[in-house]
Amino acid sequence: MPRDGSSTRLRIMDAAEALILEKGFAATSVDRILERAQVTKGSFFYHFDTKQALAEALVDRYSELDLSHLHGNLERARTLSRDPLQQLLIFVSLFEESARALTEPYPGCLFASYCYESDLFDARIHEVIVRNMQTWRTEISQLLSVVAKRYPPRLDVDLGSLADAITVVFEGAFIVSKTHRDPQVVAQQLRHYRNYLDLLFSPDLEAR
Amino acid sequence: MPRDGSSTRLRIMDAAEALILEKGFAATSVDRILERAQVTKGSFFYHFDTKQALAEALVDRYSELDLSHLHGNLERARTLSRDPLQQLLIFVSLFEESARALTEPYPGCLFASYCYESDLFDARIHEVIVRNMQTWRTEISQLLSVVAKRYPPRLDVDLGSLADAITVVFEGAFIVSKTHRDPQVVAQQLRHYRNYLDLLFSPDLEAR
Repeated sequence: MPRDGSSTRLRIMDAAEALILEKGFAATSVDRILERAQVTKGSFFYHFDTKQALAEALVDRYSELDLSHLHGNLERARTLSRDPLQQLLIFVSLFEESARALTEPYPGCLFASYCYESDLFDARIHEVIVRNMQTWRTEISQLLSVVAKRYPPRLDVDLGSLADAITVVFEGAFIVSKTHRDPQVVAQQLRHYRNYLDLLFSPDLEAR
Repeated sequence: MPRDGSSTRLRIMDAAEALILEKGFAATSVDRILERAQVTKGSFFYHFDTKQALAEALVDRYSELDLSHLHGNLERARTLSRDPLQQLLIFVSLFEESARALTEPYPGCLFASYCYESDLFDARIHEVIVRNMQTWRTEISQLLSVVAKRYPPRLDVDLGSLADAITVVFEGAFIVSKTHRDPQVVAQQLRHYRNYLDLLFSPDLEAR
């Protein structure tokens, strides 16, 4: 156990993130965070000057983790196949695989939570979220361009919005999953996205 | 202008809904609603006993309007073609058409907003949202079953989650649209959903 307070900081952040995804940022009081994290007010304010500072730290951490999933799975997909279409399909399947292992509905996306309370946050937080979504778009668009050059799509599609579609699937599926309390929604919807890419680009459709 | 107070009630509801989609339910105080709707506290509490009662009225109204869009567009699609696959594609295109006409990002979905503050609402509100999403699933699944019988899908797909996918597209696209402040995201994503259905079911793909 580290003695520099990093575990306390982490405990505060974990408790706050869970509470925000259940009740939103406005209704998540510092007192409730203290109670959930089992820390004192003094140690909370030692780590975070304000609730807004905590919000920033949470969005930074969430974005970092999210981008590491993006880059990690792109990297793994490139290792698993040399063919760009296979890389694309494997990339989506890797997320599907993780989502299928869920036994509880995914607690939700911090970006979506912030988006529905957007007036409460400053411009810097908004920028982190925008930059995060743009990174997904850019990285996946690049792969899509390579795929589309080698495997001309069956329908005329816009590659930027096709790249955005995976973010749309995650965000939308989290909401449907939370509403129905069904942990399998995210995996099912990722499968539909993968099917769409397969039908758009795979040359050997009729042979199946 | 009706003199029975119905226009005041409506003004309160419109102001509250707009505020909730910008800052969430917890941060939307009665005072702010009064200010935005230009009504007195007395007339607010004449119409709504509590903020929770207002939340219920809003979710009921939102659901009613949403289901009227669902049923209206299903009805129109059935009028426009006798072929079930064409009905399905037209159904999606009608929503795409409305979304394409947006000049501002869609302000968001009240259900999604509630979903990210779900601890603040009682079971009845949760039920309205669940029932609403289930109605979409049921109605679209029925049409999908008829389509799949006449036009066997190219890939083995689960029709329930394929029906859910339109809800996923709306919810996810609202979030991406709000984040990027880009009104065209919803139409673009509906187009991808329509493409997917087309590629799954249309028998004459290779002829294009």
